[in-house]
Amino acid sequence: MARRATAADLAIDGDRLLRRLRELAEVGADPRGGRTRLALTDGDKTARELVVRWLTEAGAAVRIDRIGNIHGVIQGLADLPPIATGSHIDTVVSAGAYDGCYGVVAGIEVLQTLRAAGEVPRTSVAVLVFTNEEGVRFAPDLLGSRVIAENLTLEDALVSRSSDGCEIGEELQRIGFDGDVSPGALRPSRFVELHIEQGPMLEAEDKAIGIVEAVQGHSWWQVTVEGVANHAGTAPMALRHDAGAAAMRLADTLIRDAAERGIPNVATVGMITFEPGAINVVPGRATFTLDLRDDSPYALRRAEQRLHEALLRLDRAGYRTRALCTSRHEPVAFDAGLCDVLEQVAARQGLAARRMLSGASHDAQMMARVCPSAMIFVPSHRGISHNPAEHTEPSQLVQGAQLLLHALLELANNPEIHHAPPAL
Amino acid sequence: MARRATAADLAIDGDRLLRRLRELAEVGADPRGGRTRLALTDGDKTARELVVRWLTEAGAAVRIDRIGNIHGVIQGLADLPPIATGSHIDTVVSAGAYDGCYGVVAGIEVLQTLRAAGEVPRTSVAVLVFTNEEGVRFAPDLLGSRVIAENLTLEDALVSRSSDGCEIGEELQRIGFDGDVSPGALRPSRFVELHIEQGPMLEAEDKAIGIVEAVQGHSWWQVTVEGVANHAGTAPMALRHDAGAAAMRLADTLIRDAAERGIPNVATVGMITFEPGAINVVPGRATFTLDLRDDSPYALRRAEQRLHEALLRLDRAGYRTRALCTSRHEPVAFDAGLCDVLEQVAARQGLAARRMLSGASHDAQMMARVCPSAMIFVPSHRGISHNPAEHTEPSQLVQGAQLLLHALLELANNPEIHHAPPAL
Repeated sequence: MARRATAADLAIDGDRLLRRLRELAEVGADPRGGRTRLALTDGDKTARELVVRWLTEAGAAVRIDRIGNIHGVIQGLADLPPIATGSHIDTVVSAGAYDGCYGVVAGIEVLQTLRAAGEVPRTSVAVLVFTNEEGVRFAPDLLGSRVIAENLTLEDALVSRSSDGCEIGEELQRIGFDGDVSPGALRPSRFVELHIEQGPMLEAEDKAIGIVEAVQGHSWWQVTVEGVANHAGTAPMALRHDAGAAAMRLADTLIRDAAERGIPNVATVGMITFEPGAINVVPGRATFTLDLRDDSPYALRRAEQRLHEALLRLDRAGYRTRALCTSRHEPVAFDAGLCDVLEQVAARQGLAARRMLSGASHDAQMMARVCPSAMIFVPSHRGISHNPAEHTEPSQLVQGAQLLLHALLELANNPEIHHAPPAL
Repeated sequence: MARRATAADLAIDGDRLLRRLRELAEVGADPRGGRTRLALTDGDKTARELVVRWLTEAGAAVRIDRIGNIHGVIQGLADLPPIATGSHIDTVVSAGAYDGCYGVVAGIEVLQTLRAAGEVPRTSVAVLVFTNEEGVRFAPDLLGSRVIAENLTLEDALVSRSSDGCEIGEELQRIGFDGDVSPGALRPSRFVELHIEQGPMLEAEDKAIGIVEAVQGHSWWQVTVEGVANHAGTAPMALRHDAGAAAMRLADTLIRDAAERGIPNVATVGMITFEPGAINVVPGRATFTLDLRDDSPYALRRAEQRLHEALLRLDRAGYRTRALCTSRHEPVAFDAGLCDVLEQVAARQGLAARRMLSGASHDAQMMARVCPSAMIFVPSHRGISHNPAEHTEPSQLVQGAQLLLHALLELANNPEIHHAPPAL
């Protein structure tokens, strides 16, 4: 019998990880070089079946909950709540290969590595595969983890209707993923999600790992400024109420606040239109979208205040303004102690890591309502995501999964140090 | 026989002026409450026939030149070049009642007033009605006066083709306005065009009359800024190349230069679009139009320089920019001595006048290439024009025509003071 490796020696099988990622990426391949596996479509069904097979190969007990989340668990030594990881395998239209899939395949790889090494940690370890994270086919996004976190009732979730007229409940049944487990049945003590960054910061700073401390909140607005349309040649500057100029000045101020003062972290004007829209007519109306994001609820609120103060100044100057909030999420802070553990393990692995924020939404922000949670990021080349060109170097994918393995082992083997005491 | 009034007592018939304006405004009336009489259409034909009838009633000898300009002349005592006035009766789509028509009807009113009073001035007085001033159906605009000014050859003008596929030459023949007079045959010694302001300045300053010293030049641009499209949540401000933000900052700077430093007189961004155009995507490309106008060729050139300097700075900062000039006219200065005469006559009439610029183009700027020229403006309510809501108070219309009468009389009766000596 071969010498049993110590926990510190354990290493995931990088080739298997990358092979499985490639195999999963083939499911739902589309003509644009991406893959399109909207939630609960036939493509999602095939991908789910593949993942269930891999979980089974890894020795996990697989169960499906009533909203279609997949639970794969390997049993620990003690009767303690499991340590969990996981992500999603549904995609946007013409997606890259790694968004979501990486965290799921790496989680399976951790289970299979433990199994192969005969390593049984103190607590159980679970991989969760969440239903409809992207929110492209069914609203809201993060749907499976929302139901677990009781941010959305199971009943409401099951009747969510897709753009193509199908109910989730019916689609789950159709693809054979209408499980019988209560979504809240598996209650982890810690949740760690591994994901690609989908932003350019790790690459720009040449860091292998991001320890995600928080998910930014966002505040989305549609802003309208009305002035007076006028002849571009005959209306003197001093007598104009140029709605376009006022809107651009306002947008510039808000973007500059973010760039120069960090209030909020990021501000984006993604769309703008002027009416009547002619080269020689002073705009009478301007409409633009505003996307504000920050990890601090106070900074987000302060940025919103600045928007409203600026609109009030325009109103006083004779414009008519309107601002409609089209979407809003408060920031989510991850668990500081858990981030410390991830950082220590990364340091032991010799990986260059930095603390950072997530700009995008992830299931971990719902799981943070259930238990102390955090995320690990690996670099995204040029920050490109939701795009077939999404890319992370194979070596970086392997490093991230290796970190996940040792982070989960550290947490699972030292529940008395790292875990909150079980509820009485 | 009634006592013959002295020239100083002469007064136009305000009721007849207003009645004719109303009658002309009915020709080509459209369902939106405006009138649509594009050049050389049936509506324009009807309006031309009406104007020819009125000129004939006013005792003028009427001739048509080869580009369809109508010449109506009353003979003076001396064999000297005529003093001329005039404007146009073609309209934009759904036009107001006064743009162009006012100058023509007031000119006819001047001739008819002189005729009725038995007043024969020293020089002849002519009314010119120019073909296709608006440039909506045929390009270029100011077409009839361009041909007179030799800015466009008759041959080129006659083959200009409308958006509906008709040649001007054929259309002139069709409506019976293909005359035989050479466009340059009537060579006035002075040209004065009476027009509504089409801007808000006279109303804002409570002035009855504007003495127009110059027509602003314009410089039109389509500006494109390319940066890098990115995720609005994950791309930090410092690592962005936000094409939309850069374009808005640039536009704001150029508009602010005009508003705060008067370089140029006016600057307008009438249209703007961002690509890809989503609330949560940093724009990768922004395109906007820029309309710069000034009465000084140096200021206009300086404003263009500022645009190009700003684009160069963006290029150096990693953006890719393009600026395409879509139209350009140098400013046209009117005759200073002629403006003085107009101002003195306005003062004698007790009319509050101010010197000003024309933001819009007018036939007078082409006539300025032929002889010393200038313009008289009357107020436009709220500056609205090219719109059925175009409005000038009846009393102001009468005041303007009255000023035109006495200005033309002053010029026609004092050729030795005001006129350039006839060419040897």
